[in-house]
Amino acid sequence: MTAPYGRVALIGLGLIASSMAHAIRAAGMATEIVGHAKSPETRAIARDLFCDRVCDTAAEAVQGADLVVLAVPVGAMAAIAAEIAPHLKPCATVTDVGSVKGAVVEAVGPHLPAGTHFIPGHPLAGTEYSGPRSGFATLFKNRWWLLTPLGDTDTAALARLRGFLEALGANVDEMEVERHDLVLAVVSHTPHLIAYTMVGVADHMRRVSQAEVIKYSASGFRDFTRIAASDPTMWRDVFLTNKDAVLDILGRFTEELFMLQRAIRMGDGQQLFDYFTRTRAIRRGIIEAGQDTAAPDFGRGADPVKG
Amino acid sequence: MTAPYGRVALIGLGLIASSMAHAIRAAGMATEIVGHAKSPETRAIARDLFCDRVCDTAAEAVQGADLVVLAVPVGAMAAIAAEIAPHLKPCATVTDVGSVKGAVVEAVGPHLPAGTHFIPGHPLAGTEYSGPRSGFATLFKNRWWLLTPLGDTDTAALARLRGFLEALGANVDEMEVERHDLVLAVVSHTPHLIAYTMVGVADHMRRVSQAEVIKYSASGFRDFTRIAASDPTMWRDVFLTNKDAVLDILGRFTEELFMLQRAIRMGDGQQLFDYFTRTRAIRRGIIEAGQDTAAPDFGRGADPVKG
Repeated sequence: MTAPYGRVALIGLGLIASSMAHAIRAAGMATEIVGHAKSPETRAIARDLFCDRVCDTAAEAVQGADLVVLAVPVGAMAAIAAEIAPHLKPCATVTDVGSVKGAVVEAVGPHLPAGTHFIPGHPLAGTEYSGPRSGFATLFKNRWWLLTPLGDTDTAALARLRGFLEALGANVDEMEVERHDLVLAVVSHTPHLIAYTMVGVADHMRRVSQAEVIKYSASGFRDFTRIAASDPTMWRDVFLTNKDAVLDILGRFTEELFMLQRAIRMGDGQQLFDYFTRTRAIRRGIIEAGQDTAAPDFGRGADPVKG
Repeated sequence: MTAPYGRVALIGLGLIASSMAHAIRAAGMATEIVGHAKSPETRAIARDLFCDRVCDTAAEAVQGADLVVLAVPVGAMAAIAAEIAPHLKPCATVTDVGSVKGAVVEAVGPHLPAGTHFIPGHPLAGTEYSGPRSGFATLFKNRWWLLTPLGDTDTAALARLRGFLEALGANVDEMEVERHDLVLAVVSHTPHLIAYTMVGVADHMRRVSQAEVIKYSASGFRDFTRIAASDPTMWRDVFLTNKDAVLDILGRFTEELFMLQRAIRMGDGQQLFDYFTRTRAIRRGIIEAGQDTAAPDFGRGADPVKG
């Protein structure tokens, strides 16, 4: 059982930080949760809902904190790191929850004083909602929380952070920074861009078709709209900061799509059938890996009574 | 309250037909449910689970049926229609559940004798599972069931079919055949192709990365794999038979994707942000249209306790 941190400072108070605060409380993993957000409205909500204390500046919020969590969009990390650096407690652990790790290491690392432990992180959890009211204590339950420790990371600080995140319900794993950004480009970043694009295409159609597209949105498109409803600021920063990996995967994707498009045009049913059969196996792998359940999900709202 | 049909014949006994059988029983909407499927194994399962009687041929199954439902892949419709035509009861209603309507009208229409009522249909419901064991009675609950009646459709036969489908829980709407195929290309067919493609790309990566892609599949990719696990035969036929509309929407999709890809390459954050903000509104429209719930869904398996 990992000992709780004393004071935990959450910088940025959206879906992830508010969920962390609820989970930290539920698990008793901090003696005080201090928060800061840029917006006065967000600060007021955080004060009411999940922070013990809310500060008007990030510099103030991190003072005396044993753990500092940077939960702002990736593009805002550098400025925050520069602001808080002079105010960090010696030996404080600093982590972040950004979806891209290379850019965060570059943005944050150089600012932090020697003696602090910087351990970049990324919880693979979220919903299509954002903001301080969207958090809930079980968001991280049975979800991966990836840490990308750097070469000189203190092993005791790392073990303590791992134990803390596990106490919030997460399964913690370690990866290299570059590997993280490539894998996430495949499993998250590129799928999000594609979902945004398909929903954008539908929007064009909607304007000429009296909302038929929305009215009849079937399973495939409904899933896409859920993905495409995610926070625009966060996703803008993801694509700008994980540019190389995303462009690489997008290139592979369009090659593959053109191959299937050609099969459709040429009427090559065998090629389509073989391709679609192969993708089924991947789905089974994901269920076996415990990242989703086998319950039928397209008929959402229905109450499955298996025959 | 619509009167039940006497005998209902289900041709093809996969997810849709087996769900219909369960729903028909639950609603008491037929005095006898007769079924036929090509595979002896499927016929045996149907006999055990949901059919009153199972026939070895489609010709036998439709004899004396007041309603005949063609629930085979679109590519198999023409042969089935030719086989059953001489055996249909005069004045029987024939409908289908194919995802494409133009090709079904062409394949089935010419075979049916004068006096039968052919009313093409398409339930916008499904799961990633297929086969006779995958059906459940509530699959159609609160889902759209589109009918595409032809110019000479008998109004009494149409009203009776509508009432029957509503009794299975569906919301029934009517559309023109061509309009149906275009709208479905947007909300279902193209999203499925894209999901299949993205999962195929991930599969390449998986082979070089010791299953990391599967292990860490985050929300976006998980939704894609669910879509891409759908029945390969059904989807092969959808793409082969709704070729023109799918190729049209795919063209729009790649134009749009290249625009966003260029924005990423050029670092145009404002364009990305504006695009992502617009797609959020579409999601809200879908929730308002009742096609999905507002419950946070990315954190599947979590138990949301809102703060």
